[in-house]
Amino acid sequence: MTGTPGRLPVKVYYEDTDSLSVVYYANYLKYLERGRSEFFADAGFAPWALNDDGIIAAVYRADLTFLSPARLGDTCEVVTSVAQYTAHRLVLDQSIMLGKTRLVKAAVTLVFLTQGLELREIPPDIARWLGEQWPNGNV
Amino acid sequence: MTGTPGRLPVKVYYEDTDSLSVVYYANYLKYLERGRSEFFADAGFAPWALNDDGIIAAVYRADLTFLSPARLGDTCEVVTSVAQYTAHRLVLDQSIMLGKTRLVKAAVTLVFLTQGLELREIPPDIARWLGEQWPNGNV
Amino acid sequence: MTGTPGRLPVKVYYEDTDSLSVVYYANYLKYLERGRSEFFADAGFAPWALNDDGIIAAVYRADLTFLSPARLGDTCEVVTSVAQYTAHRLVLDQSIMLGKTRLVKAAVTLVFLTQGLELREIPPDIARWLGEQWPNGNV
Amino acid sequence: MTGTPGRLPVKVYYEDTDSLSVVYYANYLKYLERGRSEFFADAGFAPWALNDDGIIAAVYRADLTFLSPARLGDTCEVVTSVAQYTAHRLVLDQSIMLGKTRLVKAAVTLVFLTQGLELREIPPDIARWLGEQWPNGNV
Repeated sequence: MTGTPGRLPVKVYYEDTDSLSVVYYANYLKYLERGRSEFFADAGFAPWALNDDGIIAAVYRADLTFLSPARLGDTCEVVTSVAQYTAHRLVLDQSIMLGKTRLVKAAVTLVFLTQGLELREIPPDIARWLGEQWPNGNV
Repeated sequence: MTGTPGRLPVKVYYEDTDSLSVVYYANYLKYLERGRSEFFADAGFAPWALNDDGIIAAVYRADLTFLSPARLGDTCEVVTSVAQYTAHRLVLDQSIMLGKTRLVKAAVTLVFLTQGLELREIPPDIARWLGEQWPNGNV
Repeated sequence: MTGTPGRLPVKVYYEDTDSLSVVYYANYLKYLERGRSEFFADAGFAPWALNDDGIIAAVYRADLTFLSPARLGDTCEVVTSVAQYTAHRLVLDQSIMLGKTRLVKAAVTLVFLTQGLELREIPPDIARWLGEQWPNGNV
Repeated sequence: MTGTPGRLPVKVYYEDTDSLSVVYYANYLKYLERGRSEFFADAGFAPWALNDDGIIAAVYRADLTFLSPARLGDTCEVVTSVAQYTAHRLVLDQSIMLGKTRLVKAAVTLVFLTQGLELREIPPDIARWLGEQWPNGNV
């Protein structure tokens, strides 16, 4: 891991749980997306600003391992860092932690699209930031 | 009630439940919206088609009573009918039923908006349909 | 309004929005529930602790007015206060604010249930707190 | 692929979409779970019945590729089949189709847990069914 990963606390409310009394598996992906949104916003690339430029970041792949569950009232932490990137793809390592316990491990591949959903290269300002902050991630 | 109300079956999956082992209260509003979408689609006014015309139906008020819960695996039915309408507002009566038992009772007021969220009158083709199908609802 | 209402900031992420580019109406009820959860937790009555005692707070009625929409990236605030209560019911006033603008206005009636979903009185420690903090709410 | 895969139609409603006017990525996991629930229910192993026995099926891994988006009003189809299984794990191949177009491709690994979340073997009746219906999946 190169650079400092983003960290976002996320509290578990009723909306997140299911009848097994744990967080419903799809809802961890909401947490991951909140973590990514704030990770990029901290770097000056908030999703809402990206949208203004007509470019959107979309998840192309997500490889998820669900190791341990979160429960109502837990405060988890979403940890996000850059794993690697090419001209067209950016792979993030993300974890959802509860204290020292990793609940979910995820590798998330992002691509960048026009509003018409055509693939394009990583926007230049994001590419520049990646090169500066995560120089070893360029593969 | 005038005319034939719409009826839409809705199955309860894990995603809908919470850690109290019943459907989470906000998720009944998803069921109600599915029921409204199909109610209007049956009449030729599907939400996706409305959007193409640049006019959207938005919920302005919702008065909800939660009488009894649904659980994982239940198949409920959303029952939708027109209660009343004016030039600018359409009030629907909606219920979520489980067999003969009413789980949720709702009065939902819709308004019609431009994409810029400006209020406008009920679109003429919907107004005509309301007048034909629900003549007693005009107040 | 008697006493100091609870205030909880809530950020809008993609998960909350719909294809009309505003927060989906049912998702405001998630925000309201987060606000209630923290409101009670601040007073020592977190939902997860209530559950441990075998008593749950359930929404019996919700009367909602949707005045103005929230959008991706907005940070709203959920404002919660006690409107009135009887031996069996507790009515909360809740608003979702964006700066000075009220987006959603809600009156939410809670009842208290056993795990078997039988109605019971407001638990004594909550009743005592209500009497101390919201003496004018007892009707 | 051995045996006949399950097929479940799923309609896209507002609740499923986000402000990019496509289905929000986490919501495809809800569709996949609906597909799995009905796949098992068709074989006599509905999740609600499993729960009655005290055994639950939990997702341990999910490897997802998001190929193309679904939009408001689309009717997709969730296609589910058994890829392989061992004594403790069951891997399903799942796709979300829109007509002939594959929108999402997923490999989902299930494990079976007690209510206390302890790992156990695939329940005997499910193991027997797998052996009969998907004999080539045993690895």
